[in-house]
Amino acid sequence: MIGYNPKEWFTFLFHLHKSDTIRKLSPLLLGIAAYSGIIAVLEVEVFRLSDNNHLKNIPLMHSLLGFAISMLLVFRTNTAYDRWWEGRKLWGALVNNSRNLSIKLATILKEDDKANRTFFSSSIPFYAYSLLNHLQQESTKTALFDEDDHGHLIATIDQGKHIPNQVAAQLFKRVHSLHKQGKITGEELIVLNAELQSFTDICGACERIKNTPIPFSYSVFIKKFIFFYVMTLPFGFVFSMGYYVIPVVTFVFYVLASLELVAEEIEDPFGIDANDLPMEKIATNIKKHVQEILH
Amino acid sequence: MIGYNPKEWFTFLFHLHKSDTIRKLSPLLLGIAAYSGIIAVLEVEVFRLSDNNHLKNIPLMHSLLGFAISMLLVFRTNTAYDRWWEGRKLWGALVNNSRNLSIKLATILKEDDKANRTFFSSSIPFYAYSLLNHLQQESTKTALFDEDDHGHLIATIDQGKHIPNQVAAQLFKRVHSLHKQGKITGEELIVLNAELQSFTDICGACERIKNTPIPFSYSVFIKKFIFFYVMTLPFGFVFSMGYYVIPVVTFVFYVLASLELVAEEIEDPFGIDANDLPMEKIATNIKKHVQEILH
Amino acid sequence: MIGYNPKEWFTFLFHLHKSDTIRKLSPLLLGIAAYSGIIAVLEVEVFRLSDNNHLKNIPLMHSLLGFAISMLLVFRTNTAYDRWWEGRKLWGALVNNSRNLSIKLATILKEDDKANRTFFSSSIPFYAYSLLNHLQQESTKTALFDEDDHGHLIATIDQGKHIPNQVAAQLFKRVHSLHKQGKITGEELIVLNAELQSFTDICGACERIKNTPIPFSYSVFIKKFIFFYVMTLPFGFVFSMGYYVIPVVTFVFYVLASLELVAEEIEDPFGIDANDLPMEKIATNIKKHVQEILH
Amino acid sequence: MIGYNPKEWFTFLFHLHKSDTIRKLSPLLLGIAAYSGIIAVLEVEVFRLSDNNHLKNIPLMHSLLGFAISMLLVFRTNTAYDRWWEGRKLWGALVNNSRNLSIKLATILKEDDKANRTFFSSSIPFYAYSLLNHLQQESTKTALFDEDDHGHLIATIDQGKHIPNQVAAQLFKRVHSLHKQGKITGEELIVLNAELQSFTDICGACERIKNTPIPFSYSVFIKKFIFFYVMTLPFGFVFSMGYYVIPVVTFVFYVLASLELVAEEIEDPFGIDANDLPMEKIATNIKKHVQEILH
Amino acid sequence: MIGYNPKEWFTFLFHLHKSDTIRKLSPLLLGIAAYSGIIAVLEVEVFRLSDNNHLKNIPLMHSLLGFAISMLLVFRTNTAYDRWWEGRKLWGALVNNSRNLSIKLATILKEDDKANRTFFSSSIPFYAYSLLNHLQQESTKTALFDEDDHGHLIATIDQGKHIPNQVAAQLFKRVHSLHKQGKITGEELIVLNAELQSFTDICGACERIKNTPIPFSYSVFIKKFIFFYVMTLPFGFVFSMGYYVIPVVTFVFYVLASLELVAEEIEDPFGIDANDLPMEKIATNIKKHVQEILH
Repeated sequence: MIGYNPKEWFTFLFHLHKSDTIRKLSPLLLGIAAYSGIIAVLEVEVFRLSDNNHLKNIPLMHSLLGFAISMLLVFRTNTAYDRWWEGRKLWGALVNNSRNLSIKLATILKEDDKANRTFFSSSIPFYAYSLLNHLQQESTKTALFDEDDHGHLIATIDQGKHIPNQVAAQLFKRVHSLHKQGKITGEELIVLNAELQSFTDICGACERIKNTPIPFSYSVFIKKFIFFYVMTLPFGFVFSMGYYVIPVVTFVFYVLASLELVAEEIEDPFGIDANDLPMEKIATNIKKHVQEILH
Repeated sequence: MIGYNPKEWFTFLFHLHKSDTIRKLSPLLLGIAAYSGIIAVLEVEVFRLSDNNHLKNIPLMHSLLGFAISMLLVFRTNTAYDRWWEGRKLWGALVNNSRNLSIKLATILKEDDKANRTFFSSSIPFYAYSLLNHLQQESTKTALFDEDDHGHLIATIDQGKHIPNQVAAQLFKRVHSLHKQGKITGEELIVLNAELQSFTDICGACERIKNTPIPFSYSVFIKKFIFFYVMTLPFGFVFSMGYYVIPVVTFVFYVLASLELVAEEIEDPFGIDANDLPMEKIATNIKKHVQEILH
Repeated sequence: MIGYNPKEWFTFLFHLHKSDTIRKLSPLLLGIAAYSGIIAVLEVEVFRLSDNNHLKNIPLMHSLLGFAISMLLVFRTNTAYDRWWEGRKLWGALVNNSRNLSIKLATILKEDDKANRTFFSSSIPFYAYSLLNHLQQESTKTALFDEDDHGHLIATIDQGKHIPNQVAAQLFKRVHSLHKQGKITGEELIVLNAELQSFTDICGACERIKNTPIPFSYSVFIKKFIFFYVMTLPFGFVFSMGYYVIPVVTFVFYVLASLELVAEEIEDPFGIDANDLPMEKIATNIKKHVQEILH
Repeated sequence: MIGYNPKEWFTFLFHLHKSDTIRKLSPLLLGIAAYSGIIAVLEVEVFRLSDNNHLKNIPLMHSLLGFAISMLLVFRTNTAYDRWWEGRKLWGALVNNSRNLSIKLATILKEDDKANRTFFSSSIPFYAYSLLNHLQQESTKTALFDEDDHGHLIATIDQGKHIPNQVAAQLFKRVHSLHKQGKITGEELIVLNAELQSFTDICGACERIKNTPIPFSYSVFIKKFIFFYVMTLPFGFVFSMGYYVIPVVTFVFYVLASLELVAEEIEDPFGIDANDLPMEKIATNIKKHVQEILH
Repeated sequence: MIGYNPKEWFTFLFHLHKSDTIRKLSPLLLGIAAYSGIIAVLEVEVFRLSDNNHLKNIPLMHSLLGFAISMLLVFRTNTAYDRWWEGRKLWGALVNNSRNLSIKLATILKEDDKANRTFFSSSIPFYAYSLLNHLQQESTKTALFDEDDHGHLIATIDQGKHIPNQVAAQLFKRVHSLHKQGKITGEELIVLNAELQSFTDICGACERIKNTPIPFSYSVFIKKFIFFYVMTLPFGFVFSMGYYVIPVVTFVFYVLASLELVAEEIEDPFGIDANDLPMEKIATNIKKHVQEILH
């Protein structure tokens, strides 16, 4: 994640960050500019189309569909942002969970019970690290892929055991054996249960976000729509704008494609893109706080 | 579900997937193109309407209503996606649930209590499979249909017993009898209760999504609105676009109808369409993980 | 509720269902058509207004306000659908609740305890039926009406006792007396509590949806806005469309009024309109499943 | 709250309810009409501006910003409605809570324990009344005002003690002392706890809605935006509409200002405006039902 | 937070509050006005561009993109407002929590147990103050910043220990030791647990809002889009508006930039801007109410 101060407008406007969409789109933007230029040359110089040519009125279609394309992109933006924010909430819940479990255990376990204190002060942060590794594995992303279409991809991945599940089971076992030994009472077991089962709920929810992108049909439809929309734009605009059609069409494409591009990047918040969640940082914070509490 | 990498634009643009809306709509698209062509021929060649004919200004209506139709389609898209995503969340909850119950039982049950361990390691995944079968049965979809209108349909379906309920009851009975035998304490019963009752809640919520499409009135109104909107489009556009009206009207129809078509497909996420949830895969994963934990 | 297959486009387009908005609006549509015709005759034949008349440009106002009216209608559609869907969720929760309570009681109660089994297998579904009757009574809808304005209406209704509350109290009493008799342990009481109190929560939430329509001010403002918007539409459109103004204005009114009409119908999902929830069906399903479990 | 039947269109259209925005805005509407008239006279009669004057094209700005203003008003409408509906849900939760607590206590308390039964059957509804009074006090609204700016206002208000808190504490104390006396078991205490703490949660949430309007900056920005938007509208419209500019600009202002006005009214649902929640009625219903149950 | 009466329109319109966006934007507004003026002089006086120049039609692009920019700003407004409102809800939950914990402890602790009563009546409000200080520290905001980019910033901040965690741990320890002493029963421990763990959940959620602004890519894209949109506006508008382009372009910029500016301010509700949450006030209220209850 990139930290930033949202109030520094000038930095934003004239600084090209390495994750800026202009950079990423630059080859496509040049392509679109060239394409618009060719259309303009053809219409103006080669065919010398008169102002009465019906091509002139094609932009009527673009304004009719302007609503639809904007709304689709906002739908895309909203759903991508919702996933990103849900991912952030889940990791926030992991922080709360780890802290609450530590605070409870720090109270329940005797001050001199070093063995158990050490066990939990290393196991609780370890859950965060194991989840982080789990989410960045390719196999997590492709867990729901159809084997017929993607068999070659899945075959090369050693699926192994589910690590976070093993860690959660260890935590639960230790608490349970402390209960059997009488170090944790029945009421305390109930009080600890919420945090213990929440680890697995958080892991499952992160996996859901990771392995389920928005439906294929929307993704493909939005891309096709943007493409045809922009590709047909210069035909009519050349009549009213001449060669200015080159920057104008390029700018329209920049806006539409940027929205799709950013949405693609943030809809999976557990990767290593510039906008993805700083899971490493959060896991380190969990470690720091848990050890502060359960020293 | 179709796995895909959202960043491969070129594949998306020029590859016609078998679930692509262009394919499904192709007969209708050809029909609309032909219809537009006929209107164009009639207005230009047959009646030779002058530029002062009032038909020319019909598109004023289309821009006025352009807002309304776009927003309706976004409403449709949002509600369909919400159902799909809620369905995915429910199956995610089923995964979490199955894992948590297994982790708890793996701890509570003695290591050598093979009988009960085997019972749960086969019953818990079985719930997922029974839910999957239940949701794909036609009778689940039509459970709330009005018998007066659909009697013939319902009569032919053997409603049978509700299988997931039976499985859930078996799970509950086993846990309860272990409690009676003293193998599960009172506090552990409370701790296990959350997962046990959640199975039935998930099943009920999936049934709700399955048997309650968006209100009939919206569905029919949106389709009628799109149809009349597109059918009246060529009348005015012929004046400004001539024969270009054919691709233009076809493209507008393609956009509007695609949105409706994709929404129809994903609003019931428990079918076997290309965009539907990979319930089979998820159930297999549940089986794998439960057996890993409760070996 | 009307069951339907959303993929049968042709049926939708050319079949006029008895709840179709075209049918319901037909007198108004004819009225609007006549009104537009009269305006057209007056402007074209009687006053023979020239093309320079300022009335021609009134539609500028209609495009400015086109955004506002569309968004208002989408706000209306969204809130109405949210109520309908919340109502459906509540009845879904009632199903889950009834099933879970039955599963738990089927396990806790002895196999041969016919008396209690019969009591619950008839009382649990009875709650659904009593809620259904309660929600369809006029007195439930008017429970929050101001007596000053609506005194005559309320006076004629025998408010009686609140039946669902009585049923819930009976259920709670029986469970409690079983607890006193030692047939239900303390932990089991806690486990049963969630379902028992959820009945009353569901009932209260249904009453809220039933007796609180969207604020009066919005309802009246939307209707006035649609009315004035459509009534002023023909003045300017006659200049550009001549007599075509008749179908055009009628179609615009059809779209706007249909959205409002459908919203009105579904915002109270507990009535007997064609789009309302099939509470009768759901109650029957609850009965069937509860008896299957608690035989 | 005003009860109404949403299907009586004619009543809505031609009846001017006392809370109708037309009434409230009438002085402003007359002012705007006069202002538009003066602009029209100046442009047409006094300065006799020619059709080439650049003022003619000012409306281009109004269409560009038409999107923005409509969306802002919908944002305003949505947030105001969400608060209103959240307020309604909170009072609905109060109803459910009071009923559930009564049902539980009616079961737990002995039939002949008149003292405690009477205590609860008067204290539970009393909470609703105390909350109602609390929410309608000016001091509740201004609880978070900055003393520097509003010191004079706050100084004149006797803040007193927080009554609902005292009532909740009394309820909790009585339940606790019954537990100490052995009339309520430990499990029953847990079962009653949910309702007891929910009273205070509801109170706090109502206070939040009451004392936190939408951020000052939005409120002031929306009003300024509407004002300048409408004030600059006649300059350009006079060229195309002549004196028709008077009703047109007035109608545009009526629409925009009505949306803001209704939002202002409903964003604080705990007042005594016509659209506010019928808290008095709800409290009376709570009293009626609690006494029915805990007779 | 600024208290205000939303119904005083005239005050709003003509009073320039110190947090008004017009004030903050004034240098930029002057800059945009000057820029537009220069473009106008160049086009009209220097180059004397004819009406056929293609620059005239550039505004076609602005209307096409008008949808997109408005929707983006509404997306921005909605997400910023959601964070602000979530922050307010969290502090509301802190109020409810503190009150409920006090009410419960006031009942459970003996009247004459002054030591513990005093401990809780000072510790509970102290949590609110410690959270307030914690949230206003710079280190909280930058907790997730990437050290490579921001190392110099983070190095200068003494991260210290996490104070709210320490306070929560103290509260939990005291309750637990009272349980060990038999002053709090097992059931009461369960009843108190909800409030105790909620403190840490609230703290974690506030930290999440504080240290995670909306993704960098959106923030930078929105600013760039507004900038280029406004900067290209005068080129075409000079043809139709002449020197009126100066106020028009300035007003358009004022509207778009204000929306972004207010969103920036409220998306972090825990600062000391004029629209930020009155945490100081809320903490004081908590103190007042807790001491009223736990005197």
